[in-house]
Amino acid sequence: MAKEKKLVEAITSMDVDFAQWYTDVVKKAELIDYSSVRGCMIIKAYGYAIWELIQKDLDRRFKETGHENVYMPLFIPESLLQKEKDHVEGFAPEVAWVTHGGQEKLAERLCVRPTSETLFCEFYSNNIQSYRDLPKLYNQWCSVVRWEKTTRPFLRSLEFLWQEGHTAHATHEEAQEETIRMLNVYADFCENVLAIPMVKGKKTEKEKFAGAQSTYTIESLMHDGKALQSGTTHNFGDGFAKAFEIQYTDKENKLQYVHQTSWGMTTRLIGAVIMVHGDDSGLVLPPAIAPVEVVIVPIMQHKEGVLEKAAELKGRLEKASRVRVDDSDKSPGWKFAEHEMKGVPVRLEIGPKDIEANQAVLVRRDTGEKSIVSLDGIEASVEELLGAIQKNLLEKARAHRDSHTYIAKDMAEFTRILEETPGFIKAMWCGDQACEDEIKEKTSATARCMPFEQERVSDTCVCCGKAAQKMVYWGKSY
Amino acid sequence: MAKEKKLVEAITSMDVDFAQWYTDVVKKAELIDYSSVRGCMIIKAYGYAIWELIQKDLDRRFKETGHENVYMPLFIPESLLQKEKDHVEGFAPEVAWVTHGGQEKLAERLCVRPTSETLFCEFYSNNIQSYRDLPKLYNQWCSVVRWEKTTRPFLRSLEFLWQEGHTAHATHEEAQEETIRMLNVYADFCENVLAIPMVKGKKTEKEKFAGAQSTYTIESLMHDGKALQSGTTHNFGDGFAKAFEIQYTDKENKLQYVHQTSWGMTTRLIGAVIMVHGDDSGLVLPPAIAPVEVVIVPIMQHKEGVLEKAAELKGRLEKASRVRVDDSDKSPGWKFAEHEMKGVPVRLEIGPKDIEANQAVLVRRDTGEKSIVSLDGIEASVEELLGAIQKNLLEKARAHRDSHTYIAKDMAEFTRILEETPGFIKAMWCGDQACEDEIKEKTSATARCMPFEQERVSDTCVCCGKAAQKMVYWGKSY
Ligand SMILES: [Zn+2]
Ligand SMILES: [Zn+2]
Repeated sequence: MAKEKKLVEAITSMDVDFAQWYTDVVKKAELIDYSSVRGCMIIKAYGYAIWELIQKDLDRRFKETGHENVYMPLFIPESLLQKEKDHVEGFAPEVAWVTHGGQEKLAERLCVRPTSETLFCEFYSNNIQSYRDLPKLYNQWCSVVRWEKTTRPFLRSLEFLWQEGHTAHATHEEAQEETIRMLNVYADFCENVLAIPMVKGKKTEKEKFAGAQSTYTIESLMHDGKALQSGTTHNFGDGFAKAFEIQYTDKENKLQYVHQTSWGMTTRLIGAVIMVHGDDSGLVLPPAIAPVEVVIVPIMQHKEGVLEKAAELKGRLEKASRVRVDDSDKSPGWKFAEHEMKGVPVRLEIGPKDIEANQAVLVRRDTGEKSIVSLDGIEASVEELLGAIQKNLLEKARAHRDSHTYIAKDMAEFTRILEETPGFIKAMWCGDQACEDEIKEKTSATARCMPFEQERVSDTCVCCGKAAQKMVYWGKSY
Repeated sequence: MAKEKKLVEAITSMDVDFAQWYTDVVKKAELIDYSSVRGCMIIKAYGYAIWELIQKDLDRRFKETGHENVYMPLFIPESLLQKEKDHVEGFAPEVAWVTHGGQEKLAERLCVRPTSETLFCEFYSNNIQSYRDLPKLYNQWCSVVRWEKTTRPFLRSLEFLWQEGHTAHATHEEAQEETIRMLNVYADFCENVLAIPMVKGKKTEKEKFAGAQSTYTIESLMHDGKALQSGTTHNFGDGFAKAFEIQYTDKENKLQYVHQTSWGMTTRLIGAVIMVHGDDSGLVLPPAIAPVEVVIVPIMQHKEGVLEKAAELKGRLEKASRVRVDDSDKSPGWKFAEHEMKGVPVRLEIGPKDIEANQAVLVRRDTGEKSIVSLDGIEASVEELLGAIQKNLLEKARAHRDSHTYIAKDMAEFTRILEETPGFIKAMWCGDQACEDEIKEKTSATARCMPFEQERVSDTCVCCGKAAQKMVYWGKSY
């Protein structure tokens, strides 16, 4: 047992030091490795396999909603980045600049794309002439770079992987519909695939994307009570269109500006999965994105027939699920700890006695619960169990989120909640940015969003006491 | 007919100006668009859909041969790039340098990865300790940057998309096996999916990859008689391992260096497909990578029942193939020309008379041949036709390659062939780089490879007349 203990003991308990627990999990579950490039992570095979499952599901949803993938250049000339005033102000301070190509100094600096609005705008200005060319519904999968000062794997890094949707529409209404449609696609994906419940809402002016008319967000609550912005969609109105002169002739042959949107989700979703579902034994993966949904651990595997039976079960189960047999020469106990660390949803134990009894032991990663099932019809037992785990993770996460969502009516309450029981704070706001600034300065909490589902939790602004306009979700965030 | 003509006439004939024909096709078939970033292309939706099909098939082959995907950083610190002498000499002259992050000047320049050997080596040096950790079989899909002076879409661009496999093994033999295994995976893919026959062989010392012990290549012949290096695999021996100190303890507890390989294919494959299969009507796509395998063009689509029948046929055919109905308000003739330009393998025409006769017209893109088939069992007719097209494209390409492969016994013959009937030249070589240099200088042809299938086409070196060592495929190349 010494070895198994070593693997488990190496993890800090999440209640002792959540940040350290997180770092331990990303390393021990073999999701990432550090590189000699500051703030850039290596996504290891297991971590990348999770990303591939996320990509595959999201990509299908994008295509089902009519989007096509394209690929834009990695570089943006400085002059192109500068075309939209708010956008450049937001991004210029945090981009990486290429100044030399080979031996030659460039006449104009190129930034490594922090996001590709400007490239898509240039593309649209060359490819949209008539109302017949609209809408344009594009997405791209790529990596982007933002020169962050402090970084954390998946949550904030110099380079990260993401998708960025960019669309152009004839009218403001169509752009707005797209913005909300994709927010709903994101929220559905997070709930049904990642098993993470989301609060959907609109960002305040202060928190919106550089260059956007309005930004919408899905916000989730981590185990430690901090919020994570998990995906955003932006309605740009015709601001970029005016800066880049993207016009089309309408049915009456009049020139009109297009209305644009963009929307993105990133590898930070993996950080959300870790911080929402994980526990002191490591990662806990929802089956839908688990590279291995069922690990078969043979017991006394040297005994005749055990490995054969394990292989047979794998063959039967992998018709519906991702299954691995761990027939390495490590002890079963070591294997148990290792696959728990990696968050494998179901462990199937099969040994000589089980074979004799025509049964197997199934162990759930989420609850630790063991059950003995007959080998006859084990396919159905496993499928049912995976479904139950997926469902339970969402319910647990929702219960945690709901029990860590508080109402504050004044700043004393607001501050006490943040200090004593961190979580989402629902509080009214007068709509004045001064109050938003003051709250941030005093508590470091920010307005996460103005949720679509508004409630009137009091009549006055939590900060200034003036008449309330909006109920806002507040919280400290990653 | 005026409109259809305009679309077709806009293309230069390939026999008049092959380079211009190529440029016309990539634009008119909507594969790429130019951007304001010199030498970087925008891969449009149709072009990217081809790349997605290439990726999907290759990725499956990589996984079937035991490889896992990972993701390495976009940046390489200058000091890391410099660790392996030959490698840095090969790549340093053609990389893009990041010198500033945000407002700050970096203490050390970062290059945008031109290839990721150095990053994988650093990763391996941290992650390999024992023989139990071997082999490491990784791949990554990403974009890389090489600061090329002259660029052409897909064939040579500042930034391109690719996959790079990187593996580490216990012995030289295992690394060599991997190098040849992946070359075969590449060649099989090109023949069976892209319908392009390949010559497999080894590169000469002069042509091998910077830092490799040996480089293997698959070479294909374009319609204009130029060669295209279509994929390469490299055996690094333990050269990188020594530079990066990647060691493992073997079963006898002795320290050993690992042996490494790398292998890559890029978006230039799309260039190969264009230049091997294309014709004066535009692109011709092998069904296996055609985003639309069958386009249904309704004839007299305003007549009752036509669009309904087209939709019904789509529903039946899309169980096995990628099918689109073109119900736009363009004329059938315009649609014919457009889908020919985009290389759609099969056009299905269905009009009121066809419906009455319970038939449809099928038109092959590769031969232009028309056939009338019964709507009963049309699924089988279409599937058979797609199979026949895939097969015919490979046979045509092989026949073209074989009829444009020549034997030269002296430099007079060599030069005459290159001038009069460009293609592959099989000629003997003494093994001396001086001859290779002289041939390149005099003819601008290079040694494409020393094919695995050696023949003795003469006894003496085509250049110096000394005793011949190797038969070499020579050619001008992209
Ligand atoms: Zn207020
Ligand atoms: Zn010679």
